[in-house]
Amino acid sequence: MNKTPLNIGLFGLGVVGSGLVQVLETAGLPNTNIKKICVRTPGKPRPVAPEKLTLNPMEILDDPNINVVVETISHAENAFQLVSEAMRRGKHVITANKKMVADNLHELIELQQLTGSTLLYESAACAAIPIVRTLESHFAAEPLKRISGIFNGTSNYILSRMNGQKLDFQEALSQAQALGFAEQDPSSDIDGDDAKYKLILLAAHSHGIIVRPEAVLNFGIRHIRRSDIEFAGKHNCRIKLLPVCKRIERNKLMMFVMPAMVSESHALFDVEEEFNGIELETGYSGTQFYRGRGAGSQPTGSAILSDLLALQNGYRYRYLKHNQNGSTVLDAEQPLRVYLRAPHGFPLKQLAFVHIEQKGETPDGSYVIGVTNLNTLRLNAGLLTGNGIFAMRYDF
Amino acid sequence: MNKTPLNIGLFGLGVVGSGLVQVLETAGLPNTNIKKICVRTPGKPRPVAPEKLTLNPMEILDDPNINVVVETISHAENAFQLVSEAMRRGKHVITANKKMVADNLHELIELQQLTGSTLLYESAACAAIPIVRTLESHFAAEPLKRISGIFNGTSNYILSRMNGQKLDFQEALSQAQALGFAEQDPSSDIDGDDAKYKLILLAAHSHGIIVRPEAVLNFGIRHIRRSDIEFAGKHNCRIKLLPVCKRIERNKLMMFVMPAMVSESHALFDVEEEFNGIELETGYSGTQFYRGRGAGSQPTGSAILSDLLALQNGYRYRYLKHNQNGSTVLDAEQPLRVYLRAPHGFPLKQLAFVHIEQKGETPDGSYVIGVTNLNTLRLNAGLLTGNGIFAMRYDF
Repeated sequence: MNKTPLNIGLFGLGVVGSGLVQVLETAGLPNTNIKKICVRTPGKPRPVAPEKLTLNPMEILDDPNINVVVETISHAENAFQLVSEAMRRGKHVITANKKMVADNLHELIELQQLTGSTLLYESAACAAIPIVRTLESHFAAEPLKRISGIFNGTSNYILSRMNGQKLDFQEALSQAQALGFAEQDPSSDIDGDDAKYKLILLAAHSHGIIVRPEAVLNFGIRHIRRSDIEFAGKHNCRIKLLPVCKRIERNKLMMFVMPAMVSESHALFDVEEEFNGIELETGYSGTQFYRGRGAGSQPTGSAILSDLLALQNGYRYRYLKHNQNGSTVLDAEQPLRVYLRAPHGFPLKQLAFVHIEQKGETPDGSYVIGVTNLNTLRLNAGLLTGNGIFAMRYDF
Repeated sequence: MNKTPLNIGLFGLGVVGSGLVQVLETAGLPNTNIKKICVRTPGKPRPVAPEKLTLNPMEILDDPNINVVVETISHAENAFQLVSEAMRRGKHVITANKKMVADNLHELIELQQLTGSTLLYESAACAAIPIVRTLESHFAAEPLKRISGIFNGTSNYILSRMNGQKLDFQEALSQAQALGFAEQDPSSDIDGDDAKYKLILLAAHSHGIIVRPEAVLNFGIRHIRRSDIEFAGKHNCRIKLLPVCKRIERNKLMMFVMPAMVSESHALFDVEEEFNGIELETGYSGTQFYRGRGAGSQPTGSAILSDLLALQNGYRYRYLKHNQNGSTVLDAEQPLRVYLRAPHGFPLKQLAFVHIEQKGETPDGSYVIGVTNLNTLRLNAGLLTGNGIFAMRYDF
């Protein structure tokens, strides 16, 4: 669709949608025009011409002159309905919805093949850091060993404040909410779901694996206490919430989201506040590191702008590694050294450790450091989170 | 040329050329085959089948089955002859030669238009960091304010060792040479020419300006002494050799290469040894930072591999910003605060400062800190370097 005008139908005019509107206004991308914006709530004051607004999604889906749908709503199931319907009608789609893509990646890849429509989602993973395109295009032929990083700005902001300003978890969370970095229900951010969705998107391009979110264990930072931060500090480490996808053998990967102790010498140590950082261990190029804004109105709008331009140039994802490595599977039996800290009185020893290396007491409870694996952690996940136990990886 | 087999003619089998051979062997890029390798010196033991080798460039240029030339020789003028001849014969070209591209960028863009051949040079700027593609594609529609960073691993290694191990310049340079990070004639690295070539490539894509190397002032680290390092250390800074391209006004840029004092809070502070780092101040996405290996056999081979894949997918540079901002010019009159340190006895005050702010003595000579501009520095460049004067930017 080289040089074809882009007539955009935009779903959602929240933080991301309005960021795109602003960015498009100043960038002046030629042959690009937002034709219609579908919003949910009538009557709100909005900085766009009222005739562009509609409450009816069909005004976008049914309009044959709209050839690109940009989807920026928050509800994943609704978003999938809109996006798949748009693709079936021959429209190209750009989405910022990481949960929608992670929940339906397999179907979305099939839909692209079936309909010939292009789907791009640079803004869905770490917003302004151009990581999807870097993995998909630059490293498409290079075997990658590991991708990890700080993919969730909200939890990173909380961890930074707990460490730097000696705040409690609740205080830091309230600050993040007051500043607009955390939502009223912060579950997806603090439980590691948001980071997991991004990991799933990126792993498709970095390691060629398509997995359902249910298949990937995520522990978050909901139960972290000051004493955990101090424990890490004694080892000159900071705690960061790290999603990891790591090659174990040719067709075996380990994938999880868990807090981890990060030492001073490590690039992610200095990624603070709401910033995102990505670390890539490559086959031929050593370790690469990228840092930037992983959320926010204009940074996310910027990534959508980049996808619009890509669309104009006929760019589409090829999923080269997935097509080559279709047989890659997850391995949940690899040994994993973890730190578990439970409220006083909880019988931590009963959890299935292969080997316990260390035990200790903190003002917030007692901890155990030992070797286990992802399968064991997954079997005990309900027990751990249900009892306010904080779990983190212990290898730094 | 989607799915067309790539039959490669490779010029040069040194560090970069042999890196590409290794990388291609393990990556197994489909439909890609090195058909002929042109080398300069006969009879050396080389890890490739002898029938692939030739001493005659025409065996590549005249072969109608070779559709891609990969150019990895060091001589810029010869490289330009080979590259332009290959393009005129309808071959696509991938080059790692930063000097060749910087010296001839205008001509090379014209040749692409004239011949329809594609020219890619990801490996020529910071090797494994995918910065050319990131600027060219991801940020093509976003106005960028500033690009800067550590583009030369050799000088960065020397500065790291002078600072960390308290070595003299000569000791650090000898170490770099012993480790293969510096050539026998290290001029291009230590005088900032190499960093300038990369800046020129990147500025074409980040800011849309095409400039000749002669138009950009470069000071290097040839005259740095331990006392300069210690001066910076007293301000909790490290000295780094920083190329800068910075937007002043809509169509005015400032471009130069000069050592600078970098403070602890700055991402480039921790880019040490032979690593490269790039900092990008964007219009919508805040500041981005990338770190990786900027040289070496396999990292450079990896970037060429990425270009080969791009070629297979029909990718080519569009120079969108250059086509839009053709009227952008350099401004050399902007005030610039610098530190100049001369051997004892040199009358530093006679140099044309707008304003002198500070004077002092070090064991290696006396220094002056004051405000000047690029034009004044350029007029005095011969005098400064000819008299062993170390110049660095003083704003941190």
